[in-house]
Amino acid sequence: MKVNGKSYRTIWMKEPDNSTVCIIDQRFLPHRFIIEEISSHNEMCKAISEMHLRGAGLIGVAAAYGMYLAVLECFGSPNFEDELKQKAKELIATRPTAVNLKHAVDKMLQAIKNAGNNAIKIAKQTALGIEQEDLNAGRLIGENGLSVIQGISKTKNEETVNILTHCNAGWLAFVDYGSALAPIYLAHKKGIKLHVWVDETRPRNQGAMLTAWELQNEGISHTIIADNTGGHLMQNGLIDMVITGADRIAANGDAANKIGTYLKALAAADNNIPFYIAAPTSSFDRSIKQGVGTIPVEQRNPDEVRYVTGWADNHWQSVLICPENSPAANYGFDVTPARLISGIITEKGICKANIDDICKIFDR
Amino acid sequence: MKVNGKSYRTIWMKEPDNSTVCIIDQRFLPHRFIIEEISSHNEMCKAISEMHLRGAGLIGVAAAYGMYLAVLECFGSPNFEDELKQKAKELIATRPTAVNLKHAVDKMLQAIKNAGNNAIKIAKQTALGIEQEDLNAGRLIGENGLSVIQGISKTKNEETVNILTHCNAGWLAFVDYGSALAPIYLAHKKGIKLHVWVDETRPRNQGAMLTAWELQNEGISHTIIADNTGGHLMQNGLIDMVITGADRIAANGDAANKIGTYLKALAAADNNIPFYIAAPTSSFDRSIKQGVGTIPVEQRNPDEVRYVTGWADNHWQSVLICPENSPAANYGFDVTPARLISGIITEKGICKANIDDICKIFDR
Repeated sequence: MKVNGKSYRTIWMKEPDNSTVCIIDQRFLPHRFIIEEISSHNEMCKAISEMHLRGAGLIGVAAAYGMYLAVLECFGSPNFEDELKQKAKELIATRPTAVNLKHAVDKMLQAIKNAGNNAIKIAKQTALGIEQEDLNAGRLIGENGLSVIQGISKTKNEETVNILTHCNAGWLAFVDYGSALAPIYLAHKKGIKLHVWVDETRPRNQGAMLTAWELQNEGISHTIIADNTGGHLMQNGLIDMVITGADRIAANGDAANKIGTYLKALAAADNNIPFYIAAPTSSFDRSIKQGVGTIPVEQRNPDEVRYVTGWADNHWQSVLICPENSPAANYGFDVTPARLISGIITEKGICKANIDDICKIFDR
Repeated sequence: MKVNGKSYRTIWMKEPDNSTVCIIDQRFLPHRFIIEEISSHNEMCKAISEMHLRGAGLIGVAAAYGMYLAVLECFGSPNFEDELKQKAKELIATRPTAVNLKHAVDKMLQAIKNAGNNAIKIAKQTALGIEQEDLNAGRLIGENGLSVIQGISKTKNEETVNILTHCNAGWLAFVDYGSALAPIYLAHKKGIKLHVWVDETRPRNQGAMLTAWELQNEGISHTIIADNTGGHLMQNGLIDMVITGADRIAANGDAANKIGTYLKALAAADNNIPFYIAAPTSSFDRSIKQGVGTIPVEQRNPDEVRYVTGWADNHWQSVLICPENSPAANYGFDVTPARLISGIITEKGICKANIDDICKIFDR
């Protein structure tokens, strides 16, 4: 997507040196646009765990590049394979909920395993392949999800379609395009009238910070709201559909996504509003039969709740929003039961959130 | 309740001058404890609308004192009655959702109407009476709600009872005691093991700022969470009951409360967890048959969403949490349908959220 008129992806290999990966450091958006250069496996682990980059798809691609950097570091060592496995573990531990990360690391390990002297070349090719897959998936999710928005637009006689989204599942959460926002971008390009209600998404405010910034860049009408607001809007006819991303989808369609998604799914169900998940098939974890109570939910530093970071006097600043010594808890995700999900929009098509429909999608 | 070992109420008449009302200026909690002196009707309007004080019961009492100050200002004027009516309107307009405010102003007008030369004396007595009523209601809500907590404690073999609350319905929201927190304070005094999960309650964070401060002062175990978190906790067995206040309850039991309450009520219902409203009968508006879509919902300044105020470098500071020009919306309340409410704890007893049970409570 474009930033100040120039096309960007969220991550790319720096040519011609091939030993540095560039990322948009998302901690500084929307007020500073900063490119970070990452040249070691350790730096990539830090970038993922401290959320210089985030988003289901993007952390998968970043982990693939992290494994590539690990190969550069360990190649030629007598314990090459063991060292690589250790570094794979470290990457997987950075963010436990999103399964794209594990999928990407496993794919890299598998590819490198029998590559022998070609390990570096194979690792690079595989990482580039994972990047390309993510890119293609985003584009296709946009096309597949477009039909849902077109359908609602038609029902409303082309009046504005009001869409609620939670967190950021835009191009910043992937290599490009995004998942939940991809159909919105495409619908906007097709001239469909849209308005997006953006959950600020505490504790880290990726909605207010990143989704609003993306929508502003694309000239799409939007309004930021406190996370508490969606139920009231739905109850009063101000939302036509909800669409969010997912970090891990179980075999039965239960979907882990940013904490608070489950509450919006409940409100959508209570008001007969369609609730869609948009995610590439790389976000499915069919080894988990049902997601509720099973998908690991990341707990992060409570200070992300106790403090809010924002922009003041031309720099980033954190302010304490509670008594000095009050404890807080910081659960990063929740799991929305499949029964609350109207459909899952993937790069292979839209499926119902149940085991049979999901199997059919994978068989395509 | 006690602050640093000294007993306080949230509002009181300054003796012996009788022309000044003192309040705890809640904008500065939890980091500064500041008493504000209010000596005019206009100052009281500002204190209510800008939330120097807030909370269903407290703004009712504050409005009563505002009317008393108005009487002091207008007494002896040839247009006394008209001027008073105008000032009543101004007070009612400060916060449109909570009905305690309107009830208190109407009661003051009614009392002053035929008071003639005794208007000042009658106004003072009536305001003090409304204050006393609020105080008594809080104490009795505590006693009535205690049985609910005791019941859960017994079912759990006296293991810790986990209670989720939203916003602040503690003593800071009333003259003293509170509504939702009153039974919690009493249960704690009785030695029942408790833990309170405190929704931070964006956009103004009254949970993180005020409820956490109250609980800390009373030595009650608590954890602050982002508003997004409650559904996940309920789904994973970490909450035994939800209790919140209310700003206006319709004849059928639909209850307006701080924005986001409806989402927690949905999650409680989805997980078979009891969801209680605690409110004095002065918060009922039986002129409204059903609350959903009917109770007026206050919209406040969008900058309360766009900026977060907190404590940094030993002073209050606001930080911008979104792009410079992104618009926001700020709905102050939502309405929880009666069907999601397990019971309403009032000073007259606990009733079901339906018209018959509510009538019976009023007939006591």
